Amino acid sequence: MTISPLAPDSFPQLPEIEGVRFASGATGVKYQDRKDVMLAELAAGTAIAGVFTRSSTRSAPVLDCQAKLGGSSVDRAAILVNSGNSNAFTGSAGEKSVDAICNTVAESTEVPKARIFTASTGVIGERLPHEKITENVAGLAASLSSSGIEDAANAIMTTDTFAKGSSAEVLIDGKTVKIAGIAKGSGMIAPDMATMLVYIFTDAKIEQPALQALLGALTDQTFNCITVDSDTSTSDSLMVAATGASGVDVTDSAGFTQALHGVMLDLAHQVVRDGEGATKFVEVKVTGAASDAEARQVGLSIANSPLVKTAIAGEDPNWGRVVMAIGKSGAQADRDLLSIKFGDVLVAENGWVSPGYSEEAGAEHMKQQDILISVDLGIGGGIGTVWTCDLTHGYITINADYRS
Amino acid sequence: MTISPLAPDSFPQLPEIEGVRFASGATGVKYQDRKDVMLAELAAGTAIAGVFTRSSTRSAPVLDCQAKLGGSSVDRAAILVNSGNSNAFTGSAGEKSVDAICNTVAESTEVPKARIFTASTGVIGERLPHEKITENVAGLAASLSSSGIEDAANAIMTTDTFAKGSSAEVLIDGKTVKIAGIAKGSGMIAPDMATMLVYIFTDAKIEQPALQALLGALTDQTFNCITVDSDTSTSDSLMVAATGASGVDVTDSAGFTQALHGVMLDLAHQVVRDGEGATKFVEVKVTGAASDAEARQVGLSIANSPLVKTAIAGEDPNWGRVVMAIGKSGAQADRDLLSIKFGDVLVAENGWVSPGYSEEAGAEHMKQQDILISVDLGIGGGIGTVWTCDLTHGYITINADYRS
Repeated sequence: MTISPLAPDSFPQLPEIEGVRFASGATGVKYQDRKDVMLAELAAGTAIAGVFTRSSTRSAPVLDCQAKLGGSSVDRAAILVNSGNSNAFTGSAGEKSVDAICNTVAESTEVPKARIFTASTGVIGERLPHEKITENVAGLAASLSSSGIEDAANAIMTTDTFAKGSSAEVLIDGKTVKIAGIAKGSGMIAPDMATMLVYIFTDAKIEQPALQALLGALTDQTFNCITVDSDTSTSDSLMVAATGASGVDVTDSAGFTQALHGVMLDLAHQVVRDGEGATKFVEVKVTGAASDAEARQVGLSIANSPLVKTAIAGEDPNWGRVVMAIGKSGAQADRDLLSIKFGDVLVAENGWVSPGYSEEAGAEHMKQQDILISVDLGIGGGIGTVWTCDLTHGYITINADYRS
Repeated sequence: MTISPLAPDSFPQLPEIEGVRFASGATGVKYQDRKDVMLAELAAGTAIAGVFTRSSTRSAPVLDCQAKLGGSSVDRAAILVNSGNSNAFTGSAGEKSVDAICNTVAESTEVPKARIFTASTGVIGERLPHEKITENVAGLAASLSSSGIEDAANAIMTTDTFAKGSSAEVLIDGKTVKIAGIAKGSGMIAPDMATMLVYIFTDAKIEQPALQALLGALTDQTFNCITVDSDTSTSDSLMVAATGASGVDVTDSAGFTQALHGVMLDLAHQVVRDGEGATKFVEVKVTGAASDAEARQVGLSIANSPLVKTAIAGEDPNWGRVVMAIGKSGAQADRDLLSIKFGDVLVAENGWVSPGYSEEAGAEHMKQQDILISVDLGIGGGIGTVWTCDLTHGYITINADYRS
């Protein structure tokens, strides 16, 4: 597998989070000779928040996590994730697999079942051979370590070409609060709640309802603003676990909110940078819309347009396709009021190509690896930013031959 | 240019329609050495109905046509279409070009300006060099002939790989009514009113308001049910002209409705069969939805999913992606009630793969050129059918290098 040209140089150094231990291993659910399962153990009192795919055909593990969220935070908790099989659309066998895994984790870790969360990612519709996982759980529990987060990030990958991690440290009331997160995802990515697997850990102290509300708000500004191919997974999950070990209460802390936002946005961007077949990272910035919602609507219409995405792949400053995508978005727009920029280059204004625009200047920006498309609709004060990647032969190659 | 593998063997023999004459020519607006403009002249009394793109950035010719529709049908009429430049997002220059073309057609044909309809298709955002067209109008007017429809179909093509025509003859009250239509379109196709250029001619007698109502209803069952890439053009137009020359009043005639529906569906299918890069023609049939609208919503979600479309390109019976697309559609669905078939092969039911399903049987169907995906949601009586094509390397090749 070729690593995405948009990948960071290396996996970042992530801080250890007090109260969190990791283990990972190779169970052979689908992949051979690589780690495919990760277990995270969380200290007693850890608050756990989550957002999940809104798909009406979401997987058994997602349904189980949703049912468990919001319960008491008193006991220890655990998260087990496997890659290679999503345990989605597997009928009642899917629920039995989740149950079997939770039972085994409960036995090996002595964490109550109501505090055990699982996720599965990979092929849809094939029975999860959960025996391969359960027979490894005792070993995983025995090898838990506070330094295993990078291995965990590797174990949850599917078509990803690089492991994704991000962290932040923030000083609050003279004490340091740490955040470390990992993510997987490179296809079937579109904004509709969580759109991949993301696990973020922090030693901050915060009650579960406050953490849940914060996570929801920040998801709308980060993971719900990225799209690779407009498809929404049946499995994807985003969880934040706050152990409280730092002793710092971060409820309503602007500093913590900003730090968590930064980690979430970084992970979201890394998912786009690993978009299947991606060769360009694209930011679409919309201003002047009738509302923030309409700004995002226009941004997504541009970011999801196959014609815009293929033009970017071809390094073609084809702003006509941007006009088309604005026009089809359903948001309020007026040909004569909107303006379009590629990078700093003003391309279109007053209903036509800008008098100062030269094809060479537009083409020059399109040669960059990071593309910025700015659209001002000239109507109101609504703003929104969306991130995506280009649509290339690589996407077709990966997806026309994924399962076989 | 390679002709689509899904193309019909040849352009069909279309009947001449009394009261309609065609001319076409090469003006060099963009293409060299090929016809790129067509003129149709319509007899006095011809009723003209039209549906147009709903894009908020629609082109100057579209705005002009919409303003003229519904006027008196007493006088003769004319339609002029050019390919190579869409005259969209060209500011006030766009309106001036439409005006200049209409003036010249009025001079050469003595058709009143209010009865002259134009359309332009091709690149967005470049000034239409309308002088190249206007200097050829007199010659076009002088060469009008009742047998020129095939040349007209060729003249309006852009990235099309074959010219599209269809016809029907229907016996009403012992007299024959004829219908002949042409279409262009192969990319930027998604259902939102007319999604390409389509011109249909008939010698039926019908008042304009009745024809307009009929056209709207039939568009919803035909052109609004196809999608190639989910993108909506700024230019596309569908017009039906009824000369009345047969003397047969078809108002409320089920036979005429059926015949016109057949021609429209055939042309719509041909547009899909010429979908950019298409190697498979795909019918998505949805039943058991909460409503007809939700059935179409599910159908479009499947038909527009890049992951479903690439799986079809790879001849992979990846029904998990169909489940995903149902789940993300937003329509009411229940994992345990829905069933999925590929051709006659029952793939999934009761929330899981069907016990009798074999991967070989599914793969066998996917090898066909015409693919049928049937989904029953098991919820209500809503039905809908959508047509699309696969997403291949050919689409990327065509669109990553269209303008350069």
